[in-house]
Amino acid sequence: MYAVILAGGSGTRLWPWSREEYPKQLLTIRGKSLYQETVLRLKEMIPYENITTVTHYNQRKALEMQFEEIATGIKSYFIDEPVSKNTAPAIGLAACYIYKKNPKAVMAVLPSDHHIELKDKFIEVLSKARDTAENYGLVALGIKPDRPETGYGYIYCGEKLDSHTFKVEKFVEKPNLEKAQEFIEDSRFLWNSGIFVFKVEALIKEYEKHLPRMMELLKLIDYNTYDNLKEIYEKIENTSIEYGVMEKSVNIAVIPADINWNDLGSWESIYNILPKDDNGNHIKGRVYSFDTADSLVLGNSRVIGTVGLKNIIIVDTEDALLVSRKDKVQDVKKVVGLLKEEKAEECKVHKITYHSWGSYSVLREGSNYKAKRIIVKPGHKLSLQYHNHRSKHWIVVEGKAKITRDKEEIDLTKDQSIYLPVKSLHGLENVGVENLEIIEVQNGDYLGENDIIRVDNNHKK
Amino acid sequence: MYAVILAGGSGTRLWPWSREEYPKQLLTIRGKSLYQETVLRLKEMIPYENITTVTHYNQRKALEMQFEEIATGIKSYFIDEPVSKNTAPAIGLAACYIYKKNPKAVMAVLPSDHHIELKDKFIEVLSKARDTAENYGLVALGIKPDRPETGYGYIYCGEKLDSHTFKVEKFVEKPNLEKAQEFIEDSRFLWNSGIFVFKVEALIKEYEKHLPRMMELLKLIDYNTYDNLKEIYEKIENTSIEYGVMEKSVNIAVIPADINWNDLGSWESIYNILPKDDNGNHIKGRVYSFDTADSLVLGNSRVIGTVGLKNIIIVDTEDALLVSRKDKVQDVKKVVGLLKEEKAEECKVHKITYHSWGSYSVLREGSNYKAKRIIVKPGHKLSLQYHNHRSKHWIVVEGKAKITRDKEEIDLTKDQSIYLPVKSLHGLENVGVENLEIIEVQNGDYLGENDIIRVDNNHKK
Repeated sequence: MYAVILAGGSGTRLWPWSREEYPKQLLTIRGKSLYQETVLRLKEMIPYENITTVTHYNQRKALEMQFEEIATGIKSYFIDEPVSKNTAPAIGLAACYIYKKNPKAVMAVLPSDHHIELKDKFIEVLSKARDTAENYGLVALGIKPDRPETGYGYIYCGEKLDSHTFKVEKFVEKPNLEKAQEFIEDSRFLWNSGIFVFKVEALIKEYEKHLPRMMELLKLIDYNTYDNLKEIYEKIENTSIEYGVMEKSVNIAVIPADINWNDLGSWESIYNILPKDDNGNHIKGRVYSFDTADSLVLGNSRVIGTVGLKNIIIVDTEDALLVSRKDKVQDVKKVVGLLKEEKAEECKVHKITYHSWGSYSVLREGSNYKAKRIIVKPGHKLSLQYHNHRSKHWIVVEGKAKITRDKEEIDLTKDQSIYLPVKSLHGLENVGVENLEIIEVQNGDYLGENDIIRVDNNHKK
Repeated sequence: MYAVILAGGSGTRLWPWSREEYPKQLLTIRGKSLYQETVLRLKEMIPYENITTVTHYNQRKALEMQFEEIATGIKSYFIDEPVSKNTAPAIGLAACYIYKKNPKAVMAVLPSDHHIELKDKFIEVLSKARDTAENYGLVALGIKPDRPETGYGYIYCGEKLDSHTFKVEKFVEKPNLEKAQEFIEDSRFLWNSGIFVFKVEALIKEYEKHLPRMMELLKLIDYNTYDNLKEIYEKIENTSIEYGVMEKSVNIAVIPADINWNDLGSWESIYNILPKDDNGNHIKGRVYSFDTADSLVLGNSRVIGTVGLKNIIIVDTEDALLVSRKDKVQDVKKVVGLLKEEKAEECKVHKITYHSWGSYSVLREGSNYKAKRIIVKPGHKLSLQYHNHRSKHWIVVEGKAKITRDKEEIDLTKDQSIYLPVKSLHGLENVGVENLEIIEVQNGDYLGENDIIRVDNNHKK
């Protein structure tokens, strides 16, 4: 069995934790990131080698790091979408790739940013879905609703196929509240979890029937080099698997899954899955609460005092803070919308920027200088680069560095420093076994990103 | 006429803006700090030279700077309490000092952390009070209550002395709610504003009668050198002017003052005096609010998103955040209490520490290093010092520095750096006309304050 994990989303409904370039699937809500939990959940069913992650190129590095963290020694397989399309192209892309490897394959399609509480039951259902897919082709996982939810699509069950499987009568778009209330009265309505299991061969046939132009294009892609991916992908229609395939297909099975599923679409749903204290609060960080109940407080480095609150969400980060009534969190997207309009960095990236080699954060930005903290992981290095408008001071505060400055190579350790003049070609490598930590002070009349001239491209800073 | 400003309070009811070592009177609520507003309010009545500020020694520097900012060229006069006592010793101290200068003086006593909206009316009342004090000796300013307030003491008016003055029948301690509700029905009850005008001679006589031991001790102090102040002050009783003198005195006048007075005793009272937008919000900083009403949001450098809030106070600072229901802010003191118990820095000081020479803030603290940003004002310098356990890197990012390192004197400017090894004696002076800004990186196994060995004491860091 194969798995396709969809990890290209850029949701900002969990702002300020999630940002455009640091979306929900990268976040750690409980122990591991949502993407990592998605991978780990498959452990007993699907070998890590058979997992393909479809993502957007600017999230690739972060996801790769997260994959390697849990599947040590196993080469992860990623397909980068050159532009974000919807789920139909992403799933089609993975289907064509897997079909070339194994034309008889069955593949599970899994969103990377959902929570499933009952992991054993999930594996049970997935196993049933695989068997059904072998015979039936296309299988959806449906969730029994426990509230009139207007935020999800629904699946309406038709005739019973066996003890645990129904034929899909129809896919139903997100309803209004009135309809959602009707749906919850009728046990044949299930939530569409976005989790599917497909006989790949059968799925491709359905694409050929309902999205013939898309499948034609997808088949032209070179799945060894992906050289022509960008060119072809740009021509492909932007549509969802539900709209493009599932709603038009006549032979789809659905298995009702009682797995305590949650799409974590808002801070309220995060609150719902986290453990609570006697006052109904989930509190993280240096938080001092009085007379506070039914609230979620996610602190960062700052002390937080809360007094007299009920049903409030507080999420604090280095550069942005959210305070919201719990049942109003859907409007967090309005905050993000305004930030986007104003081109504010706080909706796009975090103050700390993660790379494959480590991370950096800006400690202080003056009009003509910038102080940064740089962490380089053992064995990693930053690309050789120079600048036309800034010099740098590097002060090692932890670990061992090998520094290149023009023709020199200099070893530096804790409490040692070096000056890198304007236009000097410089590189940085961690040659120790612990993290290398450096305080960098840049001076110059222009400190923008486009005055970083890289000489090799193996490790981008 | 003379004025005594009481500025020794260490209130933390406005945490996280106020801290133990940065109390309410130093805060800028509207344009100028509360202490500065207190000084400016007297402008038309009392020459700045006749103002004496009584404070605690650890707040002296900050207050002095604030005084000089508004009264350029005028030498401020401060009396530092070596230990915090209550208002009776502080007022007695100032009275004895002023009596020595002018035995016929009339002095106004003013808390430094209140707000008075109607400044012209205040001056009018103060002028009446001065005239009354000349004849009558002791005069209190009473405020007509507009709500059953349990947080203030009250003054009960007796017989009418003239068109605007009453004899004080009695001083009444803070009532419970039931009593406060009775008081508001009876127009003879006024709030005690803590503002008094005294004929100094008469006040000293009252101390001699009701606090004879205290006055005896106060008279022993050398008001030129204050050499024996500490020794004597430690023996003095800790009591308030109301309890020690006013409640026992039989000849006190009170003038009802309609000056829109507010003691700013909580964030709710701050909210009340600030201008509001159409939604009843007062918002400062980079704040994006949706569906938010009747709230106070005081941002700092971070972006704040607020969604679906009503009657909420949000106060953000570099290292601490408060989120409170507006009518529950009296419990902010409980947060501060817990922080105190845990000896947390966030109740004591701000992340940025102000000195007469400038300021510094910690940008990053590692286990064996600390990165700081230091600003030195033109013409100022830091004391010569050395450390047994840390070295320092100084990188100038703005301005011109003269640096002393053991026997050397080195001039540094923007983008230049120097290394100060362990045990090297070093000093720093701003020899330019603009602020000098330095990034300091300390390395060492011990970075505590008691490894700063100062060699001269003119300018403490």
